[in-house]
Amino acid sequence: MSTKTHAQHIIELDKAHFTHPWTVFDVFNDEGALPIAKAEGIYITDSQGKRYLDAVGGLWCTNIGLGREEMADTLAEQCRKMAYANPFVDMTNEPATLLAAKLAELAPGDIDHCIFTCGGSTAVDSAYRLIQYYQNCRGKHEKKHIISRKNAYHGSTYLSMSIGGKAGDHPPEFDFIDDFIHHLSCPNFYRAPEGLSEQAYLQTLVEEFEQTITRIGPDKVAAFFAEPIMGAGGVIVPPNGYHRAMADVCQRHDILYVADEVVTAFGRLGEWFASEELFDVTPDIITCAKGITSGYQPLGACLYSDRIHQVISEAGHERCFAHGFTYSGHPIACAAALKNIEIIEREKLLDNARDIGPYFQQQMQTLTDLPIVGEVRGQGLMVCVENVADKNSKQLFPEALDIGKRISDHCEELGLIIRPIVHLNVMSPPLTITREEVDFIVRTLRQAILRATDDLVKEGLLAA
Amino acid sequence: MSTKTHAQHIIELDKAHFTHPWTVFDVFNDEGALPIAKAEGIYITDSQGKRYLDAVGGLWCTNIGLGREEMADTLAEQCRKMAYANPFVDMTNEPATLLAAKLAELAPGDIDHCIFTCGGSTAVDSAYRLIQYYQNCRGKHEKKHIISRKNAYHGSTYLSMSIGGKAGDHPPEFDFIDDFIHHLSCPNFYRAPEGLSEQAYLQTLVEEFEQTITRIGPDKVAAFFAEPIMGAGGVIVPPNGYHRAMADVCQRHDILYVADEVVTAFGRLGEWFASEELFDVTPDIITCAKGITSGYQPLGACLYSDRIHQVISEAGHERCFAHGFTYSGHPIACAAALKNIEIIEREKLLDNARDIGPYFQQQMQTLTDLPIVGEVRGQGLMVCVENVADKNSKQLFPEALDIGKRISDHCEELGLIIRPIVHLNVMSPPLTITREEVDFIVRTLRQAILRATDDLVKEGLLAA
Repeated sequence: MSTKTHAQHIIELDKAHFTHPWTVFDVFNDEGALPIAKAEGIYITDSQGKRYLDAVGGLWCTNIGLGREEMADTLAEQCRKMAYANPFVDMTNEPATLLAAKLAELAPGDIDHCIFTCGGSTAVDSAYRLIQYYQNCRGKHEKKHIISRKNAYHGSTYLSMSIGGKAGDHPPEFDFIDDFIHHLSCPNFYRAPEGLSEQAYLQTLVEEFEQTITRIGPDKVAAFFAEPIMGAGGVIVPPNGYHRAMADVCQRHDILYVADEVVTAFGRLGEWFASEELFDVTPDIITCAKGITSGYQPLGACLYSDRIHQVISEAGHERCFAHGFTYSGHPIACAAALKNIEIIEREKLLDNARDIGPYFQQQMQTLTDLPIVGEVRGQGLMVCVENVADKNSKQLFPEALDIGKRISDHCEELGLIIRPIVHLNVMSPPLTITREEVDFIVRTLRQAILRATDDLVKEGLLAA
Repeated sequence: MSTKTHAQHIIELDKAHFTHPWTVFDVFNDEGALPIAKAEGIYITDSQGKRYLDAVGGLWCTNIGLGREEMADTLAEQCRKMAYANPFVDMTNEPATLLAAKLAELAPGDIDHCIFTCGGSTAVDSAYRLIQYYQNCRGKHEKKHIISRKNAYHGSTYLSMSIGGKAGDHPPEFDFIDDFIHHLSCPNFYRAPEGLSEQAYLQTLVEEFEQTITRIGPDKVAAFFAEPIMGAGGVIVPPNGYHRAMADVCQRHDILYVADEVVTAFGRLGEWFASEELFDVTPDIITCAKGITSGYQPLGACLYSDRIHQVISEAGHERCFAHGFTYSGHPIACAAALKNIEIIEREKLLDNARDIGPYFQQQMQTLTDLPIVGEVRGQGLMVCVENVADKNSKQLFPEALDIGKRISDHCEELGLIIRPIVHLNVMSPPLTITREEVDFIVRTLRQAILRATDDLVKEGLLAA
């Protein structure tokens, strides 16, 4: 079979059998998906041999870059030695134990305990179940409400998707838990009321939090869930001092602060975990996944504090933590995570992220001269371009026009993968990225935005 | 460091940092967990070099046996080629596509579509979200209630654990969804009212189902979730004709039948999927995991019918299936599953399961002469011994006596791993098991039960 025929065969099988995450059925049934066949470092190659620089880093996850020989050896070696071990009750395995200990070492404050999961969604789901357990152990049976934010993304189980607050992820075809989950405003200064200073805007957000707690009742609010920087919600960097201020409110009301670091941990912002180093907050619980293995293996973790552990594990109660998964602490996944962390340490990839991150942000800022680029925002190695129909009024294009997708399609043609989210384009490249690769991204994205702008003008959708 | 000192070091780190699934804190803080270091075929070896026959098969999952060179090669090869690929929206990867197609081929009826997940819990969670989506697309917004069974196990997310119905998994420290999930009786003939024939007992179960539907309202009941044979609930083989009869009730009331085959699929009962071949039911949805990779990789799948797909993907609605995971269709996990299925086919492991299964059941039945063995039940390569204080009255030992654990501790001493669940002991060995290995299990288990019985007599807890 020729490469082309083979690719076509895969596309047809894929259409017939694989229901992808976020499938848009009308489009998918028509166009199908692009089969990717190879991945090395920051580059991926499709089934027909076309190569792309993957500025999305898989899905915010290929932190050390793909195709590493050392990782292949680690997987094979652990597979030969012990491919699986039952983690339940009274057995353990060395890679899982060593990883739990390493995570406790890297995590801030008194976060010393690890519940292993299979990804970010189950890490968040586990965090909430842990919170129930903790509050019930303390006799605080009413204290179960969760406060989250609009535009937050926390995963895709029924519970974690309900904690999330992206309108696009809450279409009418799905149902959501709404009796104990509440959403505050998205801390997006670009969309703040005109004329408000950043400090004044922050004040309104903190007041909204206080008022929401008062409305629900402080004795009913169990936890606040927040990504340090919102990822899928559009790389929302909150106003300066936001997390510290929200954490203060939490502390005053005996509310647990849960940092969802699925995207931000393991170097995306130049730190193992962003909460304490960059946002001056020591969370009670941190959820993580993605960068923990750089995507080489499915793995997640819900890390939590000694204080919580003391309460739930207190002697003499015959308590059973009836929660966990067949694959909790999977030896191969944990061995991959240990090797991944070793590589980040040995190659000083956090230093590289801290070095290239500001250059990436600065070069991306050069795009703001383009007529449809409303804002470029981000921190470290995560960045978002917000496309607008009018830069002064910040008015968006009609959603059906799908501006983000138009731009990412042009990028794809030009050999660059970026991620469209309605009117946004987001990027989160591997920590190994070089200045030259940043330059390619910025140059190519500029070209793609110009082409998309031209298209809009030609189609009469934008004034010339 | 000596082996012993090293093992002790791991045990201490493990206690300090790894919160295991189903940790019983009082016991764990005291005793810690046994570190497993090696695994080959049906055998596992602990950190101090002691070897055990693992009759639990990891956790109902090591179907082809562990330590296969071919699997190590597959993981390494896929890792070098493409360790990760973004499955969202408009990209795919060959191992995921080929696996989705293969699963469609193996699954019964018109089950042709695959939602990939990271394990059984997320497969069940996805199944329910799919059901919501389906019912909302049909305009049946009230039809969202779930009927499950007591003693069922369906996973450990907030939702899937609420669908489950094991009392031991629902301790007061956790909360559960109870407004749209209902539990029928466990179809356990051993515990059926005295004097009832199997057929008459079945009739009561079907009537209970009908009455429950009437009580909730047929327009409100969306789906019935059932394991073909309950696993963690104690290997409950339902009365003959049970699933067919329940499926008939479902059909009459437009209720989806969801077969949770996380344990039973991929050969445990001698078939790829048990529902149709063994229980004469063609489900609307099948959830699976575990045996899909034989535990070599974290992977699960929610498989569903063309009929459901037609409804949700109908053209012209701009519907987005806003559900899925970073690791959905993970290339390495899917490559492992494909190789696992290839090995099962090539080595005719389903035939072996069909050959050894009856011998295993028959030999296990010889244990029923022991004074505390109330029942031995099972099918294929899953079996359960129910221990009782009195064989006539079927009265159980006090729960605190932990008879299952006493027996499994003796087995462990004797080089055999079985799984205690309160008063039960369950087993689910690899499909590769031989007659000699069955003989070892039965002989060793007999000895362990006798030792545990002796202990009870010595402690004055059982009459001599």
